[in-house]
Amino acid sequence: MKFCSQCGGPVTSRVPPGDQRSRYVCEACDLVHYQNPKIVAGCIPEWQDRILLCRRAIEPRYGLWTLPAGFMENAESAVTAAARETLEEANAVVEHLTLYGLYSLLHVSQVYLMFRGQLKDGIASAGEESLEVALFAEHEIPWEQLAFTVVHETLRQYFTDRRNGVFTLHVGDIIRGSDREFQVHRYPGPA
Amino acid sequence: MKFCSQCGGPVTSRVPPGDQRSRYVCEACDLVHYQNPKIVAGCIPEWQDRILLCRRAIEPRYGLWTLPAGFMENAESAVTAAARETLEEANAVVEHLTLYGLYSLLHVSQVYLMFRGQLKDGIASAGEESLEVALFAEHEIPWEQLAFTVVHETLRQYFTDRRNGVFTLHVGDIIRGSDREFQVHRYPGPA
Repeated sequence: MKFCSQCGGPVTSRVPPGDQRSRYVCEACDLVHYQNPKIVAGCIPEWQDRILLCRRAIEPRYGLWTLPAGFMENAESAVTAAARETLEEANAVVEHLTLYGLYSLLHVSQVYLMFRGQLKDGIASAGEESLEVALFAEHEIPWEQLAFTVVHETLRQYFTDRRNGVFTLHVGDIIRGSDREFQVHRYPGPA
Repeated sequence: MKFCSQCGGPVTSRVPPGDQRSRYVCEACDLVHYQNPKIVAGCIPEWQDRILLCRRAIEPRYGLWTLPAGFMENAESAVTAAARETLEEANAVVEHLTLYGLYSLLHVSQVYLMFRGQLKDGIASAGEESLEVALFAEHEIPWEQLAFTVVHETLRQYFTDRRNGVFTLHVGDIIRGSDREFQVHRYPGPA
């Protein structure tokens, strides 16, 4: 950020009075430009014993597999956003969405809200941002070709829960270490 | 938004190529300025059979009661954000946080992540943004003096769950109708 979006004046990065964090502040009109994490809403579309994955037709991670997910829009519900992304990326209608995972990705300031949903009639096809879509049983998941750590973590928990016969909410952080490897911090569930 | 934060050029609101929604687009450098919902992370601090509320020392809703909550920061965990807000607004340390509610507030493009947490040693006092803080049993809750619909809904669900002896995750939307009254849409829980 270099210019104030309200008056066009130059902004500098400094700690405003009464604050403890550095913000972009306009030198002309004093407006503080707060920046906050973005929400990515996504879905695990379930069909019988399989789940739907999409192979990415866009960067980053072109050609790798992911769960349908994308940025939530203003004036939108989180549940609607997860269903919309599934429709856009996989031409698939999902119903009965329930929250399954909340993951904070500290290195990119994103919060993933991952829902489970029932894929209607088992119908899906590649949307504009997907090369292909397919249904996978657990033993068919392309673990080495998943696009993101958060997708890997979500699917790992999902199949563990399914084997145990109980789906519980998962809350975690995904943190990039100094070696650029990702660590997952998992919070305990409700007592 | 009137000016591009990258080049200082004028922005106009229009639908970019390949998009379906109106965005602020720079007329000089073509940069699209996406705007997304902000996350408010908050806590229900529990101490024996009581919970902690704060009376607001800031607008909006100066003088009314609320749960400690505030905007999540970049590079922060949602769980850490809820605990930080509780510390800032009530000088209170909370532990063992578990996600209790996810509410999308469509009229202000905010997503509330509300956690339950255990108040350490029952200690709290007014932080800078609070006039006072206090512990309330269910029959003491100032229902007519709560600051926000989302706080009312969270507390209503909370005490219903407590009477039933089971805390479950709640997912809902809060929608402002044409009469400016708020409706709550509740999604069913996991099957």
